[in-house]
Amino acid sequence: MTLAVLGPKGTFSCELAEKIREEHEEILLYPTIRDVFTAVLEKNIRGIVPVENSEAGGVGETLDGLLQTECSITAEYYMPIRHFFVSRYGTDEISVIYTHPQSHEQCSVFLRSLKNISLIHTSSNAQSAKEAASVQGSAAVTTESAAKLYGLSILKKDIQNAQNNTTRFLEITAGVSKPNDLEKCSVVIIPRENRPGLLYGILGIFARRGINLTRIESRPSKEGIGRYVFFIDFETNRGWQETITELKEITGVKELGCYRKKEAA
Amino acid sequence: MTLAVLGPKGTFSCELAEKIREEHEEILLYPTIRDVFTAVLEKNIRGIVPVENSEAGGVGETLDGLLQTECSITAEYYMPIRHFFVSRYGTDEISVIYTHPQSHEQCSVFLRSLKNISLIHTSSNAQSAKEAASVQGSAAVTTESAAKLYGLSILKKDIQNAQNNTTRFLEITAGVSKPNDLEKCSVVIIPRENRPGLLYGILGIFARRGINLTRIESRPSKEGIGRYVFFIDFETNRGWQETITELKEITGVKELGCYRKKEAA
Repeated sequence: MTLAVLGPKGTFSCELAEKIREEHEEILLYPTIRDVFTAVLEKNIRGIVPVENSEAGGVGETLDGLLQTECSITAEYYMPIRHFFVSRYGTDEISVIYTHPQSHEQCSVFLRSLKNISLIHTSSNAQSAKEAASVQGSAAVTTESAAKLYGLSILKKDIQNAQNNTTRFLEITAGVSKPNDLEKCSVVIIPRENRPGLLYGILGIFARRGINLTRIESRPSKEGIGRYVFFIDFETNRGWQETITELKEITGVKELGCYRKKEAA
Repeated sequence: MTLAVLGPKGTFSCELAEKIREEHEEILLYPTIRDVFTAVLEKNIRGIVPVENSEAGGVGETLDGLLQTECSITAEYYMPIRHFFVSRYGTDEISVIYTHPQSHEQCSVFLRSLKNISLIHTSSNAQSAKEAASVQGSAAVTTESAAKLYGLSILKKDIQNAQNNTTRFLEITAGVSKPNDLEKCSVVIIPRENRPGLLYGILGIFARRGINLTRIESRPSKEGIGRYVFFIDFETNRGWQETITELKEITGVKELGCYRKKEAA
């Protein structure tokens, strides 16, 4: 078995992969989320991708991958996100902090409290730690595993604004979704036309069957500004499959899979 | 008059600001969108912020700024987005390309066609140009103005996947929105509770009055995973103000302003 995730080593995706890997399961690291989708399809392996964070919102690259490739969702994971302030130096000696822009946003209160220190944005939490390990008088906002990997000392832990900061990850596998009766399903609504009231009509189909939507997120359809597709997650109940049939009468629908929440032990 | 925008010099925000500035109007550059909101409030000036792109989707920092500060929307602008492939070297001599992650996504087809060249992500399109101007054998994906600013030659223009790639920008000013009868209004729905069918009920209020929604986008409420607020843009018609009154009976609503589309001459 092989598991594809977003690298480099030390990212939150890697930390989750380490927790959920099966015995002897190999972890393959890819530089972008799009590369994880490609690996899942070409090597027929499972992949783990982040889909939304409770502070920063939806992950566009993952939603686009679900829309554009023939991957299905087979499970979801919820991972508490803990940010660490780390350095090889004491707090007084630090003049620059490396941080990923999303981590900056998620730790903005703590970072604003530090005076006269400049912030430099990086491409990943692992990259922030790597920079802090090599640049004199620098520190990083990063993960616990990246701090260990680069031999940095923890100056302060849990510097995130919200202590319940959580990222939801999806497990994806190659192939078209097979409907079943698991707890939750995801679909993407691809409107054939841009008419007033269409979204209202779509939500009405769910509402009349008492189906609870847990999330709705719009994404550009890539056909020009003002054109959207809608990702909808919902809890299944008896007869939910007829909902899909009814939806398909009024709009384009791509089924993304039905799945269960799994614990990241 | 003063105009606050996202810097550094050479970003798309700057290019728009140069086009729409009034005579003698000074442009102030800020390192983050959040800083633009703060400047608008503290200096009582107008600001320009990107809110959505036809390929990459919504700009979370701008939506959060609208939700969390007392700024109102006073106009919208649509700017065609053109990406340029630039370097001090010939195509054969290039071994590395600097690109902002969103520009990478928006130019993915062209970038994939280049073989054996590594990509390095940066924090802005201007930063990409700056790196390409100083690192041997490198190139950048950037704006036309940044290419000029750093003296880089254009190897290929319009390398974006979609030729109709467009970013929508908002003009913001300090103060609470005063309802008026301009073409378009924006509100954010802040649900007081997480009950099934609430969003359906909200869209019904618009639908029954024949009001056309031009956009709906969810954002995390920052109160934990699975809790959202909804940004809604709609076209005004006679009696739209009663819609707001009706909405307020069932949910929290923050009015973000009514405005008109302006041309970026």
